[in-house]
Amino acid sequence: MASPDPQRLSLNTATVRKQWNLAQAIEGCARHGIRGISPWRDQVKELGLNQAKKMIQNQGLAVTGLCRGGFFTAQHWLDDNRRAIEEAHELQAQCLVLVVGGLSEGSKDLPAARERVTDSISRLLPEARKARVPLAIEPLHPMQAADRACVNTLEQALDICESLGDGIGVAVDVYHVWWDPKLEAQIRRAGAGRILAYHISDWRVPTRDTLNDRAMMGDGVIDLRLIRSWVEAAGYAGFHEVEIFSELDWWKRDPDEVLRTCKERHLRSS
Amino acid sequence: MASPDPQRLSLNTATVRKQWNLAQAIEGCARHGIRGISPWRDQVKELGLNQAKKMIQNQGLAVTGLCRGGFFTAQHWLDDNRRAIEEAHELQAQCLVLVVGGLSEGSKDLPAARERVTDSISRLLPEARKARVPLAIEPLHPMQAADRACVNTLEQALDICESLGDGIGVAVDVYHVWWDPKLEAQIRRAGAGRILAYHISDWRVPTRDTLNDRAMMGDGVIDLRLIRSWVEAAGYAGFHEVEIFSELDWWKRDPDEVLRTCKERHLRSS
Repeated sequence: MASPDPQRLSLNTATVRKQWNLAQAIEGCARHGIRGISPWRDQVKELGLNQAKKMIQNQGLAVTGLCRGGFFTAQHWLDDNRRAIEEAHELQAQCLVLVVGGLSEGSKDLPAARERVTDSISRLLPEARKARVPLAIEPLHPMQAADRACVNTLEQALDICESLGDGIGVAVDVYHVWWDPKLEAQIRRAGAGRILAYHISDWRVPTRDTLNDRAMMGDGVIDLRLIRSWVEAAGYAGFHEVEIFSELDWWKRDPDEVLRTCKERHLRSS
Repeated sequence: MASPDPQRLSLNTATVRKQWNLAQAIEGCARHGIRGISPWRDQVKELGLNQAKKMIQNQGLAVTGLCRGGFFTAQHWLDDNRRAIEEAHELQAQCLVLVVGGLSEGSKDLPAARERVTDSISRLLPEARKARVPLAIEPLHPMQAADRACVNTLEQALDICESLGDGIGVAVDVYHVWWDPKLEAQIRRAGAGRILAYHISDWRVPTRDTLNDRAMMGDGVIDLRLIRSWVEAAGYAGFHEVEIFSELDWWKRDPDEVLRTCKERHLRSS
């Protein structure tokens, strides 16, 4: 299978968040010829929304997503998600990524948590449509079901999308879904209409931490070319967003080295 | 929902494997009035198969499973699994638990690993049927897909069972499947005919290790009563086998305290 188009590479700023603030990450993308960026809201706030928007536009970067809305178990979830939609609109983000939240504090009621997700998104969706901000449900790995997201498979996310209609889709992050025996079928089912983002990294063996031990593409066991072939066969022609949380490795390195490696591994191993 | 029948409690010896050998675990079960046991093959070998059989029979314990066959990527998998079937037959185990293995060394080919599982079991199954040893595929948590088992959902395991016919079913371990949005439906689909074992423990938040950080029933977020109600509604009337790998907690405790706690939590929280 052919290497991907290097123009399709995007940087999720979490990949260098311990080393760089958002301004530095924007400049880093420009310096390394990376054409897309996906910032986190705390970093946007720190830089200022208008300044972030201006810097990103000046560099001509595509905003492949804004991270993140969701966490529907939080106290002020509705106001917070409304602000996230506004920010995504201002930044012309291709989607607002939703990490939906896990169980409520002290609860074991997973079915209720899941109902709450659908209900909450249905309240949010009219405003997102009005703002022309597509909402992207990101199914997270089942090991994060209790504390981060109770949507854990692509099938489950697509069931929610279909129950809600237009303006909503999924973020397919290989780290979260690579293991799924139904992955190919569900990517096909999603089609280009529902795949709003495609995130890449790799699965390290052994995994030393359930949150912050992702590997660089090529350093783990995920067949990234195979999954990309499925995503492209489904009609997806968007960016490939590198998102690596790595307390023990990549967050400790020189961020320019990290970006150079992202570019090289995107071409060679993704 | 009512407490479970205390007579249904079984001890998977992994729960106290750092403290006790198999002889001590058998005596421990007898001392605490636990009526079932599920030993590991290395412990059986250490004690001697005949001696293990004799001690278990003398105490009148049910052998709710033998752990474990599988690992079809290992070099001598066929001979090893044949021996496991013989041992399970000798011990009159209710099933031989299969942990099917992950990716082959250096491989990223998950679809091939999965095909290999079905092929390997189909070679093994005639001998298992002849020995009257039901084979129980245990779907493991997706976080163990690369290195321990590429069968990761109950749906996937049941698809394999249905492709192979009689003499094969599943071990439902709450730790591995509690997060699955299709769990209730797939337990119903399995029915009493395919549910060969039911394993209990709990999911700790946060999880500090992807293998050996299980919690005691009641100390985590799994709604054990709800899942038991599904299993019972499907017709399962067998044992509830406690299996807790716990490097940082239960493996460090006095094993009699562990067994007392298993009994109490089985009644109160399972």
